[in-house]
Amino acid sequence: MLVLDYRSMSNEALSAEKADLEKRYADFKARGLKLNMARGKPGVDQLDLSMPMLDILNSTSNIYASTGDDCRNYGLGDGLPEMRELFAEMLGIDDHNIIVGGNSSLNMMFDAISCAMTHGFPGCKPWSQQGHLKFLCPSPGYDRHFAITEYFGFELITVPMTDQGPDMDVVESLVKDDPTIKGIWCVPKYSNPTGITYSDETVRRFAALKPAAPDFKIFWDNAYCVHDLTDTPDTLLNLWHECRKQHSIDMPIFFASTSKITFPGAGVAAMGASEHNLTVFREHYSYQTIGPDKLNQLRHIYFFGNLDGVKLQMEKHRAILEPKFQVVQEKLESALGGKNIAEWTNPNGGYFVSVDVMDGCAKRVVSLCKEAGVTLTGAGATFPYQKDPRDRNIRVAPTYPPVSELELAMDLFCIAVQLAAVEKILADRA
Amino acid sequence: MLVLDYRSMSNEALSAEKADLEKRYADFKARGLKLNMARGKPGVDQLDLSMPMLDILNSTSNIYASTGDDCRNYGLGDGLPEMRELFAEMLGIDDHNIIVGGNSSLNMMFDAISCAMTHGFPGCKPWSQQGHLKFLCPSPGYDRHFAITEYFGFELITVPMTDQGPDMDVVESLVKDDPTIKGIWCVPKYSNPTGITYSDETVRRFAALKPAAPDFKIFWDNAYCVHDLTDTPDTLLNLWHECRKQHSIDMPIFFASTSKITFPGAGVAAMGASEHNLTVFREHYSYQTIGPDKLNQLRHIYFFGNLDGVKLQMEKHRAILEPKFQVVQEKLESALGGKNIAEWTNPNGGYFVSVDVMDGCAKRVVSLCKEAGVTLTGAGATFPYQKDPRDRNIRVAPTYPPVSELELAMDLFCIAVQLAAVEKILADRA
Repeated sequence: MLVLDYRSMSNEALSAEKADLEKRYADFKARGLKLNMARGKPGVDQLDLSMPMLDILNSTSNIYASTGDDCRNYGLGDGLPEMRELFAEMLGIDDHNIIVGGNSSLNMMFDAISCAMTHGFPGCKPWSQQGHLKFLCPSPGYDRHFAITEYFGFELITVPMTDQGPDMDVVESLVKDDPTIKGIWCVPKYSNPTGITYSDETVRRFAALKPAAPDFKIFWDNAYCVHDLTDTPDTLLNLWHECRKQHSIDMPIFFASTSKITFPGAGVAAMGASEHNLTVFREHYSYQTIGPDKLNQLRHIYFFGNLDGVKLQMEKHRAILEPKFQVVQEKLESALGGKNIAEWTNPNGGYFVSVDVMDGCAKRVVSLCKEAGVTLTGAGATFPYQKDPRDRNIRVAPTYPPVSELELAMDLFCIAVQLAAVEKILADRA
Repeated sequence: MLVLDYRSMSNEALSAEKADLEKRYADFKARGLKLNMARGKPGVDQLDLSMPMLDILNSTSNIYASTGDDCRNYGLGDGLPEMRELFAEMLGIDDHNIIVGGNSSLNMMFDAISCAMTHGFPGCKPWSQQGHLKFLCPSPGYDRHFAITEYFGFELITVPMTDQGPDMDVVESLVKDDPTIKGIWCVPKYSNPTGITYSDETVRRFAALKPAAPDFKIFWDNAYCVHDLTDTPDTLLNLWHECRKQHSIDMPIFFASTSKITFPGAGVAAMGASEHNLTVFREHYSYQTIGPDKLNQLRHIYFFGNLDGVKLQMEKHRAILEPKFQVVQEKLESALGGKNIAEWTNPNGGYFVSVDVMDGCAKRVVSLCKEAGVTLTGAGATFPYQKDPRDRNIRVAPTYPPVSELELAMDLFCIAVQLAAVEKILADRA
C-alpha cells in the first residue's frame, strides 16, 4: 500500500480519507469500549509478580531488622539499614544519605517542597517568605510534579525537553540571574512521558549549574531507574558523583520508590540528599511522624534480598511490558508512519510513549478517543497549567490494559490521530 | 509499719531516712539495669496479638476492596469504604467524613497544621500569613503535639488540666477575644499523660466555644478511644454530635489510628472532619499522594471484620496491660502513700500514669532513675517548651517492660521520688 503524506494530498483525496476514517471511527464507537490508559498503572499480571511478598512475614522469628529492632514497634526513623542500602544502590548514592519513607515518593517530594516553604534551607529564608517564586518544568513532563509547585503558588516556567533531557542552554540562562527560581523537576531516566534518558553532558551541566538562588534544588525523581524494557537499556550518569566533583552536593534531592517494582500504593519510597539537606528534612520528619512502616520495608527486603533480586523482578516486568510497548510502536508505525502527521518516541524503558500529533490536534484526539470509550491522559497534562502551547502532545500509557485491549485502544487512537489531522488540514485550507 | 508524712518529720529522722534511701538506691545502681519507660510503646506480647494479620493476604482472591478495586494498585484516595466505616464507628462520626491515611495519625495532624500554614481555611488567609500565632496546650499533655506547633512557630499557651479535662474557664476566656489563637490540642479520652477522660460538660463547652478566630480548630486526637483497662471504662461524650447541635461542626478535627491496636508504625491512621474542612484537606492530599497503602487497610479489615473484632482485640490488650497498671498503682501506693510527697492518677485506660512529685523534684527523679539505668520520659516533656513551671510532673509509661522488669523499675522510681523529696525538704529547711 502506498503511504501518502497527508499534507500533500488533494482536498478531494483528503475528503475521501476523512469519510473512510469517520466510518471506521463510528464502527469503533459502536463497540462500546471502556478502556483506561490515563495513568501509568501496572497491569494485573505485573502485580501478581509480587504476591509472595504479601505473606512473607509469617512468624515472630522474622520480624526483626538487621539491627535487632522489632519492626512491629516504633523506631528507626530513617528506615531499616538494609532498605537504605538497597535504595542507595538503586540511586547510586551513599546509604547514610538515604531516608526511607512511606509508600509514596511523590509524598516525599511534596513534603520536601512544603518543608522548604515553611522552614527553608540553612542560611536562607523559608520559601514562603521570599515573595513571588518560580519553578522550572521541563515539558512535556510529569503532571503531578508540576501540580505540587502550582499548589504552593510557584510560577511554572516551561523548559523545552530535547532528546538529551531539558534544554540546558535554557536552564543555565534562566537560573544564573534569577534568584526567584528555586528548583527544577527532573525524571532523568526514561523521562515521563518522553521516555528519553538525560545524556551524560546534560547530567554534567546539571552538576555544574550556578544558580543565583543559594537554595536552588534539583528534584531528581529517578522513578524508572531500574525499569529497562530492552536489551539496550539506557544508562544515566551519576548526578551524586558529578555534584561531589563540582562541590554542588547540596543542590540535588534524589527520589525513588518500589511502586512500579512491587505494588503501587503498597511499595516503599525513599529520598537521598546531602547532609546539609538531610538536617532540614530529618528535623521535619522528627516532628511529622514517629517512623515509617518498617514491616513493609522488611517484606521488601525478604522478597528481594538485594539489588540482584530487584533486577530479577524487573526482568519479569519487562517480559510483560515489552510486548505492550511493541504493540504501541507497531500500531503507530503501521497506521501513522510516513503520513507526516505525528511523531513519537520509542523508549528503552519506563512507562510511557510520548506522541506529538499535528499542532492543534491533541485535544481533539483525546476527545475522540474518550467519546469512543478509551480514556487517555488529558491533552495538555504534560505541560504547566495543563496548557500545551502547541496542543500536540499526548502521553500514551500502555502498561495497564491487556495486550488484546491495548491493540484495540491503539487502533482507535491511530484513527483519531488521522481523523483529527485530516479535519485540521482541511480546515486550514478552507 | 507506721507511714510518716515526710514534711512533718524531724531533720534527724529525715536524715536517717535519706541514708537508708541512698543505700537502697546504691544497691539498685549496682544491679546495672537497662530499662526504658520513656515512650508509650506496646510490649512484645501485645505485638504478638496481631501476628495473624501479617500473612492474612495470601492469595489473588483476597486483595479486592468491597468496591471491587484491586488494593494492590493505585486509587481510592480516601481509603477503603470498609476502613472508613470502621474508623467512623470508632470515632462516632459519619463515614463519608473520614479520610484514611498512612501509618501515623501524628503525620495527619502535622499535615493538617502544615496545610493550614500554607493554604489556610476557606475565607481566611493561610496561617503563615497571619503574623504571630498561638496554640493552646492543655498541660500536662502530649509532647509530640506541642512540638508540632512549636516547629511551625506558634507561641504555646499552657492551659491547666483538671480531672474533667482542660480548664474550660481558661479556654473560653482565652479564645473569645484573641483571633491569633488558632487551635487547641486535645486527647479527650484517657488523656496523655493524666489518663482522665473529658467530662460531658467539658465536651459540651468545647462544642459551644465561640472563638474570635473564624479558623480556630480543635485537634481532637482520640488516640485511646477503645483502650479500656478496667470493668468501669470511661465514656466520652460525642463531640461530633454536640458540634452538630451547636452549628460548630467546622471547629473539630478528629484523629485516630490502630497504632496501639495492631502495630505501632504498621497500623492505619485516619482523620475525620466536616465537609468544609475536608475540601481543604482533600485538595492537599490530592497533590501530596496518589493514595494510601490499601493493602494494609485490607489486612486490618480481614483481621477485625468490624468494630466487635477491634473490641475483642482490645480485651486481649487489656489482659496484658491491666496487671502492669496494677503494679504501678501498688508500688506507688505502698512506697509513697501517706508520705505527702507525690500524687498520681489511676486511669481506667490509655497508656500512662501521671505522677506529680514534690515541686522542684521531677528533674531530679528522672535523673536519679537514668543514672541507675531506667529511662523515663524527660521531666518537663509534658509541658510546652519542655518546661514544667513547677518541675513536678512525670509521665510513667508502664506498657513496654515485662511485669518483672516493671516491678524493678517502679521500685527504683519510688526510691528516687522519696530521695528527691527528702533532699528537697532538708535543703528547704537549711
